[in-house]
Amino acid sequence: MPGKNNSNIPEVVVQRLPQYVRALTQLHNRNIEVVSSKELGDALGVTPVQIRKDLSYFGRFGKQGRGYNVVFLLQELRHVLGLDKQWTAAVIGIGRLGSAILSYPGFGQEGFNMVAAFDSAPLGIGSRIGELIVQNIDELERTVKSKAIDIVIIAVPAEQAQSVTDRVVKCRVKAILNYAPIKVQVPSDVRVREIDPVLALQSMTFHLKSLHD
Amino acid sequence: MPGKNNSNIPEVVVQRLPQYVRALTQLHNRNIEVVSSKELGDALGVTPVQIRKDLSYFGRFGKQGRGYNVVFLLQELRHVLGLDKQWTAAVIGIGRLGSAILSYPGFGQEGFNMVAAFDSAPLGIGSRIGELIVQNIDELERTVKSKAIDIVIIAVPAEQAQSVTDRVVKCRVKAILNYAPIKVQVPSDVRVREIDPVLALQSMTFHLKSLHD
Repeated sequence: MPGKNNSNIPEVVVQRLPQYVRALTQLHNRNIEVVSSKELGDALGVTPVQIRKDLSYFGRFGKQGRGYNVVFLLQELRHVLGLDKQWTAAVIGIGRLGSAILSYPGFGQEGFNMVAAFDSAPLGIGSRIGELIVQNIDELERTVKSKAIDIVIIAVPAEQAQSVTDRVVKCRVKAILNYAPIKVQVPSDVRVREIDPVLALQSMTFHLKSLHD
Repeated sequence: MPGKNNSNIPEVVVQRLPQYVRALTQLHNRNIEVVSSKELGDALGVTPVQIRKDLSYFGRFGKQGRGYNVVFLLQELRHVLGLDKQWTAAVIGIGRLGSAILSYPGFGQEGFNMVAAFDSAPLGIGSRIGELIVQNIDELERTVKSKAIDIVIIAVPAEQAQSVTDRVVKCRVKAILNYAPIKVQVPSDVRVREIDPVLALQSMTFHLKSLHD
């Protein structure tokens, strides 16, 4: 957005924005044209004050008491997040999980195109999953360059995750989605997001335990 | 922990604790006996000040300048989170994703035992996955009670997620792990965690876009 400097936006706000996009898309699909910060907050589980504060980083989207225009806000946030572009992704580690990731239609629908798959096990290399042939991990460097891969998804066992990550970082990939149940270390200019259902469960047992005590 | 009231602990701290447990477990596996808040912070990507502040909610774990005893801190945090107990979980929606969840060894290793699987499609009902037979969703209410299910994992398509959630809530289940790409609404005494890799990717493209601009 003109005149706005992205680097001033707190990371916690950046991480909430995709939830805004998802909620606004649902409202749009239900033909809702205008939404108040109260309604949007209810849908997202945050306060209206938080909604207004978050959105204020990106410009003026609504008029006091009038609510937000759903289509306009959705378009702007999609643009801010870069969701109006197509992105290329590769998966490393084609076991049960990696195969499920490659087969999940939700990525392509949202503009994340799986363009390569890698494994190190001789058994898997050369097999076909959807439209991709699983490549030898040794072809990683060359393929990241030739296919201009933006994002790498790591689905290898925990003990291999750091060495695979190091290799990905050397290819100058700046975004990693890590499914391995380990925190990987990366330079500060590389973003990592983790998908770890066990961590999610463990933060709920804290509350379950209180019910039992 | 004696004298501590769990309800005063900010939710953001609760959600960080499982990461502490994971990092401490890795240190323990490497035979490291004492860790400073600086080292723990480096491993987790947070500041030492944050570490000390987070842990202060649960009692006094370290002495100034001495660092934390890894085994003791690990035991205490596992107790705080209820990870020294076994928990029962059921999966609803046994497609490709639900099958992968049921087959993932990481849950059982961490004390989350999959004790039931449900689907609504006549084709899948009755099929065996590991040690479980997929049950008709109509048996949900009875099975949640008879097997004392603590946690339900939802792996149905987005358009069914809310109605399935409503049904789970009626069974008095207080913890839901939602893999459907939609925010489900629940009463305030029910905890929901979402696993949505698309949201994770979308919060990274914000940064990738800045690199391209």
